[in-house]
Amino acid sequence: MTSKKIGEQTLAFDRPPVILGRANAAGRKEGEGPLSATFDYIDNRDTFGQPTWEQSECAMQRQVLSDALKKAGLSGEQLDFLFAGDLLNQCIASAYAARDRCVPYFGLYGACSTMGEGLILASMALDGGFGSHAAVTASSHFCSAERQYRTPLEYGGQRTPTAQWTVTGAGAVVLGRDGSGPKITHATVGKIVDKGVTDTNNMGAAMAPAACAAIAAHLRDTKRSPDFYDLIVTGDLGVLGSELLLELLDREGISLHNHTDCGSIIYDLQAQDVHCGGSGCGCCASVLTGYLLSGLEAGRWKNLLFCPTGALHSPTAAFQGESIPGICHAVAISGGN
Amino acid sequence: MTSKKIGEQTLAFDRPPVILGRANAAGRKEGEGPLSATFDYIDNRDTFGQPTWEQSECAMQRQVLSDALKKAGLSGEQLDFLFAGDLLNQCIASAYAARDRCVPYFGLYGACSTMGEGLILASMALDGGFGSHAAVTASSHFCSAERQYRTPLEYGGQRTPTAQWTVTGAGAVVLGRDGSGPKITHATVGKIVDKGVTDTNNMGAAMAPAACAAIAAHLRDTKRSPDFYDLIVTGDLGVLGSELLLELLDREGISLHNHTDCGSIIYDLQAQDVHCGGSGCGCCASVLTGYLLSGLEAGRWKNLLFCPTGALHSPTAAFQGESIPGICHAVAISGGN
Repeated sequence: MTSKKIGEQTLAFDRPPVILGRANAAGRKEGEGPLSATFDYIDNRDTFGQPTWEQSECAMQRQVLSDALKKAGLSGEQLDFLFAGDLLNQCIASAYAARDRCVPYFGLYGACSTMGEGLILASMALDGGFGSHAAVTASSHFCSAERQYRTPLEYGGQRTPTAQWTVTGAGAVVLGRDGSGPKITHATVGKIVDKGVTDTNNMGAAMAPAACAAIAAHLRDTKRSPDFYDLIVTGDLGVLGSELLLELLDREGISLHNHTDCGSIIYDLQAQDVHCGGSGCGCCASVLTGYLLSGLEAGRWKNLLFCPTGALHSPTAAFQGESIPGICHAVAISGGN
Repeated sequence: MTSKKIGEQTLAFDRPPVILGRANAAGRKEGEGPLSATFDYIDNRDTFGQPTWEQSECAMQRQVLSDALKKAGLSGEQLDFLFAGDLLNQCIASAYAARDRCVPYFGLYGACSTMGEGLILASMALDGGFGSHAAVTASSHFCSAERQYRTPLEYGGQRTPTAQWTVTGAGAVVLGRDGSGPKITHATVGKIVDKGVTDTNNMGAAMAPAACAAIAAHLRDTKRSPDFYDLIVTGDLGVLGSELLLELLDREGISLHNHTDCGSIIYDLQAQDVHCGGSGCGCCASVLTGYLLSGLEAGRWKNLLFCPTGALHSPTAAFQGESIPGICHAVAISGGN
């Protein structure tokens, strides 16, 4: 075993990659929510100037990367790698967004955990000495996701109380080997956990066991108590999934008093009729690159554990009666310089 | 810039990861083809014991990983990372195959370039000092791909002369930081290239420009002549795409006399009615883990440049009139100890 791996599944970076730039974009509903002020760009028409929803999602990814690079003071040519993913079949939002950029590209599929997966791979690439700068982007769009996963918007399908609302949003992070800014110090790479949940309208429950496993593994591997972190933030478990997570952790003897969930805070759950909260790759990607990192930069928090969760199933798998495998990666980010 | 990156997009591994184990599996048509003897397992019913085609593909991935681990003399628990991908929506063959393994997991979407993408990321993880062992798996299945991308088999759609045949096959590679076997010495990470091809029945033409760009970049970055390699092997350009590649390279002043293409050699093109050849993530994955690596191990070749290509589009993108973005990664593998 090598020195950069501690415990069973956690990486400790020798030279923690620095977040040099970050940007996000969101749609109308997100812009009307409590995190409105933390979005760099809000399109009240949700189209981002494009004729199809898939192209709208793609335009969001293009824009956030462009904005994050600007904030980092870098040109696209200075990127050694781009890691990107989304929820669309064949991850087309990411691929088409990267098409016009001449950057070495790794396409990811981690469902809603994509931002975490990308941050880990980008951090390994930089800490491993393979480059100086890497970017990670992830997105989701309510309208492209509804069309693909559920029913076309025009159908007007009803939602169950456990359902979540796919966030129209995207986030980009630009990482560097050098510079000042929040740093990625550790990362716990998630394992797939499937406890047999088959209800595709209750994804929080399907993903909570994976979140529990990743957080428990992270604390075990780093020998840290939950209180080391000012905030332990899951991706999009939503309200019900978050309750389940706390219960599952409690059974493992871990009590979290500093937990929040991107899906639970991105909307005003009562006023905005989103049932259990937000979901989608763009949910934690836009919350990380706005609310969370701005709070870290402002000194509101010092240490965050960012734990995006993903449900690695598909409509076809659901039709065939398969249960929903979940995954969660835990990424430790420390503020300041 | 750091020392492990040479030129614009090539990584030179300080401690080249070693291929400790490899395994593949294939279906009937592949088993009837010229590479039959190089497959570890052939299922003449193509079902791999499962009731649905998606589950069949998943079973293939499970089996090849299991077999490759056995050949490497490792247990699943000794794997630090698993990198996996396939062509199915939401990459379910990979996720469900990994569900029962308790291994830190990275889901990839690189279309038919997935095996190359995975080998690069796994090599970075090991050479970067983040673990001792990593596995890469990739698969495709003719029947699950036809259902998803084209028409159900029962429809009996006709194929154009430029079309390729999705390979029913999977491959797994187990890499280690130590040990003896073929080594991954360099890798050129591909950029997305889109020259405006919109014909989804002519993927070879869509991907050839990306293959040309990756091979040219690799040779430029490493300052190697094509003759350094005994074989430069593209993934699944097929016959037409391969012709285009040679023509495009020729225009760049590079003439290849040692090129072959997994898609062009996996079938008997005349006798097996596959038009331009094989395609799918499983095509180059099964050819690499059989024909190519066995040849390397046997000393038939010393240096291979493995260049899997991927088309990063989707049926939805095609319906919306989008052209097909291609990608190609080039992975240099040296035989012996």
